[in-house]
Amino acid sequence: MKAAINFITIAVDNLDRSLAFYRDGLGWKTDGIVGGEFGDNPHGIDYRVVMFDLGNGLMFCLWTRDNLAKDARVDPGTPGGAGFSLGIPADSEAEVDALLAEAAKAGATVTAPAAMAPFGVYTGYFADPDGNLWEVAWNPHR
Amino acid sequence: MKAAINFITIAVDNLDRSLAFYRDGLGWKTDGIVGGEFGDNPHGIDYRVVMFDLGNGLMFCLWTRDNLAKDARVDPGTPGGAGFSLGIPADSEAEVDALLAEAAKAGATVTAPAAMAPFGVYTGYFADPDGNLWEVAWNPHR
Repeated sequence: MKAAINFITIAVDNLDRSLAFYRDGLGWKTDGIVGGEFGDNPHGIDYRVVMFDLGNGLMFCLWTRDNLAKDARVDPGTPGGAGFSLGIPADSEAEVDALLAEAAKAGATVTAPAAMAPFGVYTGYFADPDGNLWEVAWNPHR
Repeated sequence: MKAAINFITIAVDNLDRSLAFYRDGLGWKTDGIVGGEFGDNPHGIDYRVVMFDLGNGLMFCLWTRDNLAKDARVDPGTPGGAGFSLGIPADSEAEVDALLAEAAKAGATVTAPAAMAPFGVYTGYFADPDGNLWEVAWNPHR
């Protein structure tokens, strides 16, 4: 597996408060809270998220701890369980599946098998030996 | 403040186990555990770290939770307290100080005021409203 990270998601308790801190306080540019249109989904997940384009192909995202835990299917109360997630890019559904399988073979726990998300990205999660989360994703719209 | 991240540090419990997972399991290239030469320091911190160069100016690092907590001066038991740290690059000591002050003005907590680390990097930490850690650093050797 090539070492690559194309997005960083950190868990926050309140999106509005975090948006105020990062956008209004630090001055980072963002379109604000997006993804509300995916609210009516069968996953019980609120896909509202704040994204910052850092350049160099790297995105920084704010998402609520509860939703990150649900999406990765981990206990938000576990130490390191849902504090952040690092995104590994893939070029196809098959590659997402293969990378998750490779991680599992290396000793990772696949917490969420890959599936197509409501926003059209094929994605799954694995946890490293300490529970640190990685999301492997293929975005066919890019 | 410009939105930029040039390194990602995640907390692990055992460097050897994590090195085995990421290097031997996932196949990510690294020089292994480095920084042992800074072990004899007055900070009580073990600077042994594993680094992966992801390209695009981004480094991914493994460091023990205990040392990350000591370096950032946070309680490792706090939820989100020492699970990871995201690095913001600066071009001078003065810029590190200015960025930490800017973060504080925006509502962040400066957990570790900037100081010169034994490995020659001028660095300090702030925590966002949820306790997520950011390290602002100037590396004069680059």
